[in-house]
Amino acid sequence: MTVSGWIVALFLVTLTGVEQVLLSEWGSETERNCSAVPPFLPPTAVNTSLRLQELRADMTAHNITAYIIPGTDAHMSEYIAARDARLAWMSGFTGSAGTAVVTQDRAVLWTDSRYWVQAARQMDCNWEMERDGYITSWLIREVKEGDQVGLDPFLFSVEAVKVKSICVCVCVCVCVCVCVCVCVCVFVLKERTWQMKVEQIRGQMLENIYQPSALLLSALDETAWLFNMRGNDIPFNPFFFSYTLLTLDQIWLFVHTERVTPELQEYLKASCNASLCVQLLDYNLVHAHLQMYLEGADVRVWVGTKYTNQALYELLTPEVRLDGTPQTRPFLVFSRDSHNRLLCNSDPKIRDAVAVMQLLHRLESSVPEGSETEVTAAKFVDEYRSMQRYSRGPSFETISASGPNAALAHYSPSKETARKLSVDEMYLLDSGGQYLDGTTDITRTVHWGTPTAFQKEAFTRVLMGNIEISRTKFPTWSRGVNIEMLGRRALWEVGLNYGHGTGHGVGNYFGVHEWPVGFQSDNIPFLEGMFTSIEPGYYKENEFGIRIEDVAVTVPAQTTYGSSYLTFETVSLVPYDRKLINTSMLSPEQLQWLNTYYQTIRAKMGPALMGQGLTEVHDWMIKNTEPFLTAGAPVLLTSVSMLLLFLTPALL
Amino acid sequence: MTVSGWIVALFLVTLTGVEQVLLSEWGSETERNCSAVPPFLPPTAVNTSLRLQELRADMTAHNITAYIIPGTDAHMSEYIAARDARLAWMSGFTGSAGTAVVTQDRAVLWTDSRYWVQAARQMDCNWEMERDGYITSWLIREVKEGDQVGLDPFLFSVEAVKVKSICVCVCVCVCVCVCVCVCVCVFVLKERTWQMKVEQIRGQMLENIYQPSALLLSALDETAWLFNMRGNDIPFNPFFFSYTLLTLDQIWLFVHTERVTPELQEYLKASCNASLCVQLLDYNLVHAHLQMYLEGADVRVWVGTKYTNQALYELLTPEVRLDGTPQTRPFLVFSRDSHNRLLCNSDPKIRDAVAVMQLLHRLESSVPEGSETEVTAAKFVDEYRSMQRYSRGPSFETISASGPNAALAHYSPSKETARKLSVDEMYLLDSGGQYLDGTTDITRTVHWGTPTAFQKEAFTRVLMGNIEISRTKFPTWSRGVNIEMLGRRALWEVGLNYGHGTGHGVGNYFGVHEWPVGFQSDNIPFLEGMFTSIEPGYYKENEFGIRIEDVAVTVPAQTTYGSSYLTFETVSLVPYDRKLINTSMLSPEQLQWLNTYYQTIRAKMGPALMGQGLTEVHDWMIKNTEPFLTAGAPVLLTSVSMLLLFLTPALL
Repeated sequence: MTVSGWIVALFLVTLTGVEQVLLSEWGSETERNCSAVPPFLPPTAVNTSLRLQELRADMTAHNITAYIIPGTDAHMSEYIAARDARLAWMSGFTGSAGTAVVTQDRAVLWTDSRYWVQAARQMDCNWEMERDGYITSWLIREVKEGDQVGLDPFLFSVEAVKVKSICVCVCVCVCVCVCVCVCVCVFVLKERTWQMKVEQIRGQMLENIYQPSALLLSALDETAWLFNMRGNDIPFNPFFFSYTLLTLDQIWLFVHTERVTPELQEYLKASCNASLCVQLLDYNLVHAHLQMYLEGADVRVWVGTKYTNQALYELLTPEVRLDGTPQTRPFLVFSRDSHNRLLCNSDPKIRDAVAVMQLLHRLESSVPEGSETEVTAAKFVDEYRSMQRYSRGPSFETISASGPNAALAHYSPSKETARKLSVDEMYLLDSGGQYLDGTTDITRTVHWGTPTAFQKEAFTRVLMGNIEISRTKFPTWSRGVNIEMLGRRALWEVGLNYGHGTGHGVGNYFGVHEWPVGFQSDNIPFLEGMFTSIEPGYYKENEFGIRIEDVAVTVPAQTTYGSSYLTFETVSLVPYDRKLINTSMLSPEQLQWLNTYYQTIRAKMGPALMGQGLTEVHDWMIKNTEPFLTAGAPVLLTSVSMLLLFLTPALL
Repeated sequence: MTVSGWIVALFLVTLTGVEQVLLSEWGSETERNCSAVPPFLPPTAVNTSLRLQELRADMTAHNITAYIIPGTDAHMSEYIAARDARLAWMSGFTGSAGTAVVTQDRAVLWTDSRYWVQAARQMDCNWEMERDGYITSWLIREVKEGDQVGLDPFLFSVEAVKVKSICVCVCVCVCVCVCVCVCVCVFVLKERTWQMKVEQIRGQMLENIYQPSALLLSALDETAWLFNMRGNDIPFNPFFFSYTLLTLDQIWLFVHTERVTPELQEYLKASCNASLCVQLLDYNLVHAHLQMYLEGADVRVWVGTKYTNQALYELLTPEVRLDGTPQTRPFLVFSRDSHNRLLCNSDPKIRDAVAVMQLLHRLESSVPEGSETEVTAAKFVDEYRSMQRYSRGPSFETISASGPNAALAHYSPSKETARKLSVDEMYLLDSGGQYLDGTTDITRTVHWGTPTAFQKEAFTRVLMGNIEISRTKFPTWSRGVNIEMLGRRALWEVGLNYGHGTGHGVGNYFGVHEWPVGFQSDNIPFLEGMFTSIEPGYYKENEFGIRIEDVAVTVPAQTTYGSSYLTFETVSLVPYDRKLINTSMLSPEQLQWLNTYYQTIRAKMGPALMGQGLTEVHDWMIKNTEPFLTAGAPVLLTSVSMLLLFLTPALL
């Protein structure tokens, strides 16, 4: 309380007179400075001396020179349970991407640029941070021939181990601080039944010319999807610890059996016959059972190398192994089901938009009063969502960032860093909800005072990127990675860019990051009914951050001559901050898209807001979806260019 | 003579009254019809009965069930010497991409859609054509367990063999019809010396953490590039049969030593000292020599699996092998040198444009007179090029295609298929030249009569694609594959598309298809000074084909806020057929780009054409580069869209 009070006080000083120098000076004081004497540690830094000392003792006992600590769990999950937070425990760094290596005299963290500042705020000076370079090269330098490198093979994907080409010598387990235990609950989603999915997968096993006899599912979302089951072992993701081993006539589901309810038992045994009977085995038996299965004749197991951990993979000799990456996952096609589900129930996106509008409407009055911080805003949007039907909490940790904090693409506020919201700064809110009937993810960037010309230009160019992707038509089977530059082009035009991806698949009461859909190079081609985020941005270090994120679904596009074309239908229903839009920069096509989108928001949200008795929010929505009528801009643009036709000299 | 006369006669019939039905009927008669009784064979079909009979006898003698015949040579070359034309000899099919499999009772050809029609014109009914499906799957069906599949391991890349996962059992050599023998000539290009390149590569070998002791270069362009040497063993490509084995202190060059001139000897021995001495060994000794090298201690050979043939690769056990694909090739960075070369001498693109303009100017008068065919036009453009300084012939077989023939993206005319050029058809010319100071590649599509509205729309949309790529700004290191959709977007908008790539690297008196630069997924990111073609198109089967191809070079782009951005500078200097451009469809930015380009053509070509005394061609160029002044179109477009703003109903 004192600490955060002290921080807030500091903010007041810096923000009333917006001194750039002051700001960045202040900014640096939230980060450690290990070269200072004595070293400066921010209040957010974690003291890791004792933990490292214990680990190093263990390492000596096991004759290990270097020990690798990954940020993931045995299923290569993106979000992990508290009991799996080994990296955070050992280093203090809580970002969702990172790997650490500890030797007797060094402790080093590798993470990507999104997290450099966060790491500098959370790690003490026992730790170095490697911004560039590969772990492999580092190890090759640090480790002598014959030295042993330790890691827990359950925590490394086969790919990772291959890449690192490290000899897996011994497994040390890092002591774990907390151990949570929760019970699995089932929601029978109105998707295809798990029996249908099992048959579909078996069909593909039979078609496969390499004739796999079994398929091993290691990623938590694979088993959750297959059985239409959801749990809550993992924050933000409704998954539960599990593996599935599926053969042509048997199904083994590995879960914490003591947590299986009678209803769940019945649900899984319902259609019990020769080939559709789920045999429940304890989660911890998976290694032993797989080993036993492999002793059978003519077995060949289909596995993904991306989500299967090394410990299980090592049981499979080349003869009995069929590396399935990436085939194993795309054929599960999560989003197709989400699609079927969401189309027959359009509620969640509307309920979610209600909550976001409630917050934006609230902030318009509370921010000028000086009563809001990044933390309170995050708290309120989570609360508004929790009041909506079928709500099951946020789908990821809310990103509520003001001014310079928003320049960290993945910043989440804490008591210590919470910045007061002000009419003098841009504010970025990236949040989403889990609902029994869907998952959402939306980002809006707003300004309650007077934005600078550059802020308006940058925001408008980010918006142009969002619109250009949303309105483009493309052949079915096009790959997102080949379309995503439309999200960057308006920024590139003036030499601006952003350092993150342009969109990720979104599930149906599932992971908010749903591989294999999206705009990355490892995503599958777009088919009808896939849900993805579209989220271009721009970040000015130490000043502000802009991101405009909507969830969109691929729908058939009408074309004059062709068939089988797709375009995007925007699912998110919250208007953009018109104060930040310079309409004279938009093309006629972009203006038209924008007005059509606003008409849709009015049509869908009007009744919903009135239905919930939110009259003021309704008026706010109407005010913020006024059509943009100015046609002057493009005409002006045209005449300007025409002028250029006569003036431009030869370029070459 | 009779035959071709008869064909021409047929043309006359069909082309005077442009009966679509007649046309397509006639079209079908140029292709074989094996289901007809008796089977119909066009005059272009090759009788392969005797050849197959001999091969099958050989196969029986070697106890081979199926024999695979690839279209390439021992260096995986795209263009091959006549003596390597095994596939063409055996099947009659001369397309540049294809693989055949022969069993005792079947003979099957796999090729891609570009060549289906050509194959149906060239193959007799001994041959089946597989349009879909994989050779592997086909073999798995056709070949019993224990059967032997034969292939010549010198003719298969390691990748191909891996993909096909075929046991290489025995090597049968197909009899070769011709054997050419030419001598190697050297041009010391003003690039970096071969000594500098050797040092650069050795530097990368030393940096490589896997410490290769040697690098094996198998692709012909790699050795040609390394030593700045050119030969003429391969049509259209100035390459010569060779391998290079490069260690940290030795250089072995494998060529047909009897063809090495004293000058060449001297050139390679000039800087002879401990580490820069080229040892010449006979081409045929490469296998034995590599084997001998591998008997040494601590050897590890860096090889690409894409261009190294299986026979050499098999000598390398995993311990002594370092698979370098794709690293081995990009670090040779062909285009960077081409760039240095071409920038200090801008001649070849101008001389090439003179030749193309000469043809287009000629055809405007000769076509209405009825005196031109696809063959004569191709002949003339090659002749015009040959009259230019430093000319070394065409850089690939000229594609000269009228009407429906142009719908075959890779059609080349022959006496039998030659179509008469007419004011009633669109005409596509895709041609290029080899010059001692550069390589060119350009495509123009024209119409001498009255194009249909659809032809104009399609041409304009293809042009919009070409312009959108050419004028876009992007960060250095962007990948072509992520930009190329700009070439398709205007077509996608109305449901049109094209089935080929959007551009390929172009060399400097080198291969006209110069991997690793271009817009394909296996190309490297763009850096300054890379030469690539930009060639969107559209093809309407049985009617017409459109392609607009320019060579462009990446140059620094000025941006308001950013640094290290690139854009394209168009190197080709020939105007587009303005009769086919619907300017009202172009954006102001596109019109401006077009006018600036035309100003450049006038500035560069005016003096060149007058200098060569080609006054008429000069006037033709001026007439065809008149600036487009109409500014009305975009304004109209704008107001239309504005109108829509009020009319469009909500979409959802």
